[in-house]
Amino acid sequence: MLITLEGIEGSGKSTQMRRIAHHLNGRGLACTLTREPGDTPIGKKIRAVLLDPANKELVPMAELFLYAADRAQHLGERVIPALRRGEVVVCDRFFDATTAYQGYARGLDLSIITKIHGMVLEGLRPDLTLLLDLPVDVGLARARGALASGDRCESESRFEEEALAFHERVRSGYLSLAKAEPERFCIVDATSTPDEVTQAIIGAIDARLDASL
Amino acid sequence: MLITLEGIEGSGKSTQMRRIAHHLNGRGLACTLTREPGDTPIGKKIRAVLLDPANKELVPMAELFLYAADRAQHLGERVIPALRRGEVVVCDRFFDATTAYQGYARGLDLSIITKIHGMVLEGLRPDLTLLLDLPVDVGLARARGALASGDRCESESRFEEEALAFHERVRSGYLSLAKAEPERFCIVDATSTPDEVTQAIIGAIDARLDASL
Repeated sequence: MLITLEGIEGSGKSTQMRRIAHHLNGRGLACTLTREPGDTPIGKKIRAVLLDPANKELVPMAELFLYAADRAQHLGERVIPALRRGEVVVCDRFFDATTAYQGYARGLDLSIITKIHGMVLEGLRPDLTLLLDLPVDVGLARARGALASGDRCESESRFEEEALAFHERVRSGYLSLAKAEPERFCIVDATSTPDEVTQAIIGAIDARLDASL
Repeated sequence: MLITLEGIEGSGKSTQMRRIAHHLNGRGLACTLTREPGDTPIGKKIRAVLLDPANKELVPMAELFLYAADRAQHLGERVIPALRRGEVVVCDRFFDATTAYQGYARGLDLSIITKIHGMVLEGLRPDLTLLLDLPVDVGLARARGALASGDRCESESRFEEEALAFHERVRSGYLSLAKAEPERFCIVDATSTPDEVTQAIIGAIDARLDASL
């Protein structure tokens, strides 16, 4: 089973990832926590190019292909082997993030993005996508707080420097994706307390797991 | 005008690049010499991932997308601006190299490669592609000689370590491409002396330039 977490900056994905692992382990299920971009040694080098604020010259199509390269490597080296071992794979951002950020927000042709996803995913689809949704100003304020407290490194902040309008397009892009695939998506209200968010997430995961037994 | 040079390892592209520039300048034409992968600051980081012998885990699709990313960046930052300034752009390896190496030699689906090239090139096509052709054993012996004499750095040698059969597939892939587009390609016998190769190349370039005047 492949579970993906999506959401704008500050939606609390990292916190929830750890709690999901704890819950799955409690159910006796082996799980692999992973993320995009940068969860393989090669992916880390790609991530460094993508998120370096110095790379202002990065053209949108190059950015799109770097995400595709990271994803192909990530699938081949981490995700597919873990799924073959029968583990639950929980991924912090996956291909929906590319559609939301590079497509809806950055304005790249959605049909090109869809074609590239077809090449990379080869039919693989998440069984469940948890969209942690919250207003952009709340998310960005939280992300800035985390940055100030040192939970994130400076080099990860290229996207957080983008204009508020950009993040609004990301959020509404995510919501459009969720609307188009209600079977796969579960929208979680991320303005709730972390414990409430965990409860909602675990409820959705358990429902999916129980249905697949 | 966009001129590309293609050929297996040891075909003498670097030497001829300099001579082409000299000739074009002698005709009063401004030119930009460039290469793939790695002719932009971002491209250099991508090239480092592609050609690092330590990256044995690099999956073929990730490799393909890294080349596409480098190419998109290279086109946006270097090639298109130079063409717009009216310069002759001479590029050491371009998209045919991806078709020959990743497609014909590595075995990736040629239709996927063609689709990606369509996305990256957006209709741009070289006006002339010079294929420096020679037997693989001759080319590899030359490349090894250059490596031993320090003309190349060790980190660029990942492909040169590939089996002879791989390079045979690259060569025959290039020849198939040339056969399919005889108008664009000019096959140059690279077993000749460097001066003879230069003469053949300059003849082809001048013919193309004179025809376009």
